[in-house]
Amino acid sequence: MNGIDAIGKRARTAAAALALVDADTKDRALNAMADALIEHAGEVLKANEEDLARAEADGVTGALIDRLTLNEKRIEDMAQGLRDLTSLPDPIGEVVGSWTRPNGLQIERVRVPLGVVGIIYEARPNVTVDAAGICLKSGNASILRGSSSAISSNKVLTRIIDDAGVSAGLPKNCIQLIEDTARESAKELMRAREYVDVLIPRGGPELIRTTVEESTVPVIETGVGNCHVYVDARADVAKALSIVVNAKTQRPGVCNAAETLLVHQAVVEEFLPRVVDVLSESGVELRGDDSARAIRPSIVPATEEDWDAEYLDLIMAVGVVGSVEEAIARINAHGTNHTDAIVTEDPEAAERFAREVDSACVMVNASTRFADGGEFGLGAEIGISNQKLHARGPMALVEMTSYKYIVRGDGQVRE
Amino acid sequence: MNGIDAIGKRARTAAAALALVDADTKDRALNAMADALIEHAGEVLKANEEDLARAEADGVTGALIDRLTLNEKRIEDMAQGLRDLTSLPDPIGEVVGSWTRPNGLQIERVRVPLGVVGIIYEARPNVTVDAAGICLKSGNASILRGSSSAISSNKVLTRIIDDAGVSAGLPKNCIQLIEDTARESAKELMRAREYVDVLIPRGGPELIRTTVEESTVPVIETGVGNCHVYVDARADVAKALSIVVNAKTQRPGVCNAAETLLVHQAVVEEFLPRVVDVLSESGVELRGDDSARAIRPSIVPATEEDWDAEYLDLIMAVGVVGSVEEAIARINAHGTNHTDAIVTEDPEAAERFAREVDSACVMVNASTRFADGGEFGLGAEIGISNQKLHARGPMALVEMTSYKYIVRGDGQVRE
Repeated sequence: MNGIDAIGKRARTAAAALALVDADTKDRALNAMADALIEHAGEVLKANEEDLARAEADGVTGALIDRLTLNEKRIEDMAQGLRDLTSLPDPIGEVVGSWTRPNGLQIERVRVPLGVVGIIYEARPNVTVDAAGICLKSGNASILRGSSSAISSNKVLTRIIDDAGVSAGLPKNCIQLIEDTARESAKELMRAREYVDVLIPRGGPELIRTTVEESTVPVIETGVGNCHVYVDARADVAKALSIVVNAKTQRPGVCNAAETLLVHQAVVEEFLPRVVDVLSESGVELRGDDSARAIRPSIVPATEEDWDAEYLDLIMAVGVVGSVEEAIARINAHGTNHTDAIVTEDPEAAERFAREVDSACVMVNASTRFADGGEFGLGAEIGISNQKLHARGPMALVEMTSYKYIVRGDGQVRE
Repeated sequence: MNGIDAIGKRARTAAAALALVDADTKDRALNAMADALIEHAGEVLKANEEDLARAEADGVTGALIDRLTLNEKRIEDMAQGLRDLTSLPDPIGEVVGSWTRPNGLQIERVRVPLGVVGIIYEARPNVTVDAAGICLKSGNASILRGSSSAISSNKVLTRIIDDAGVSAGLPKNCIQLIEDTARESAKELMRAREYVDVLIPRGGPELIRTTVEESTVPVIETGVGNCHVYVDARADVAKALSIVVNAKTQRPGVCNAAETLLVHQAVVEEFLPRVVDVLSESGVELRGDDSARAIRPSIVPATEEDWDAEYLDLIMAVGVVGSVEEAIARINAHGTNHTDAIVTEDPEAAERFAREVDSACVMVNASTRFADGGEFGLGAEIGISNQKLHARGPMALVEMTSYKYIVRGDGQVRE
């Protein structure tokens, strides 16, 4: 028995035991894991140096090196992330509904863990700790499959936190890493329906596409965000300006950053020059349609691809629309059902947009950047789902659970 | 543009419009669809005769012919099923949570339809109407893909109900049938991620396995039930007897019928002969382990396959266990996470069983046959999910929905 079978069986055993572990023990384990990370920081950094040396030898540069790099501060952040989880309520065991039927059957709907959660992710080794912590707090055993570039860091991190959890009273193997980083091992995980209840890919569009295509395990698709800001005919121009700039530039590399700006033609002459100036000062390249370019010829002509692009960079597509209906239609056609915003003082336009835009999060007079578990007050999140099955929008602890029905009778049989 | 692309695009357009249709219009449409079925019963029966003639020419017999057959009574039942949906509350638009953040953002979580639901099913033409009705009431456009054996009936049924819905004010194409019954058309549907939000297979294990294997569209796995009844050391023998007999024989061909009986050794001598006598009288064949056969040698020896079998027939596997722990372990190893029951007067054993058996429904002193949307008081169900993602157990109207976040601000941006 090799590979995924061995790991999967251990995970199922761990998940069955972990589902019954009380909140105090889980919180004690999270604190112990945080302590152990700090205590063994030297070991983590040494392993990380191996990863970095290998990456540099392979000619890797820039953003990928940054994502791969750990330092004392990043280790402290990981530890703090684990400690923060202890202040959140344990979702498991909560009775989320109960009622009695005319025949006397008492029905309870009780929150339970999903069971075994697989996480497939890319270079950032902190995902190892963040994902394992969220899975643990929500009672789920995790099987982690990071990238080969971070394998040395991931091995050490997983060993440290799983050992610390066991010392604090958790079952063995609640957190396992797939150490085989051959492509085949990810495919095995994607097809391990017998062992894995749900698979969450965390990474770029290519990783997500492959996971969706190849998996027989149920997948939660996360993260791709072609987010729009629509500035309505009755927008408050000052609000629109600060929302667009914030949504685009506050952190351009994340999924809830805005990628496309739509401006109602009634305000385009007033609004567009001002927003272009401010965005250009922040280094944003604008790519627009003919109507936008008629007002500011410095705007680069947009191609068809621009309307569908998730730049994750200081680039923004700009289009002019004639109505809120047109804005809604364009967002539903080109968006990714993630997060889209309207800026308007017109309550009717706001409600129409909120109802008809088919996205996980619809913002009225607020930045798209608020689409986030922490900003919503839900606590730590494992990602933002843009599918409709199971969880939609920020996935926090409750979204990492399922439920079961417990029906108590006194000998009832069906007529 | 052919096949699934044309159907999928029409479904997306219909779904966007249907999501905004009010409860009264949907209920009026359901009643109109019921009226139309009764009015056009002759046409339905004529089409059904074509299906039956084809099946008979192909040498089909027995249960399959029964499943394929429509008659006046079955058409009335379909119509009544649609009318019954009108008495259930509309789940769409309900605000299922709302709160205000310290920065003033008002967050609402609002129930919305899933969007486009694909249903893949087998011979029974009534599924066409039942599934379309549940999808409609929950605001979802449906794409139906029945079997070639029922194609004439399905075509007529779909045309009648979709036309009636349109006359009552629904958007066009809320209900579409894939008329191409080649195997490839089912595969196209399974991979139509661009158009279909969720796919629900309704049928036997082979259909479900293929759907899970082939789909890139998110699937809800329904229906396979190797349900257990465990008769504990402290069972009330009279209750145990009536529960086992009811669970096995009241309707043996459905997923919540019991397939395996586990008896604690402390009561096996008292209980087993009695239950064997009553089950045998009902024509049930028992297949048991050595301990069961030592008490009743007439019991057929069970093979390894028997412990995993979903007979859907008058057959039951019988095993003797030494403890509630052993019963739980066997159920978690051989069950299908559907519905399992314990019969006991021992509250500790009951609670342990309820917590540790990893099934959608756990029954304490009640028949497994109660695992049903109607019996739970949830109204009509589209199936019983035995996966943990999205919906678990009976899937009624609420389980056919998703949600969105609507966030209302006054110009907030993220720091």
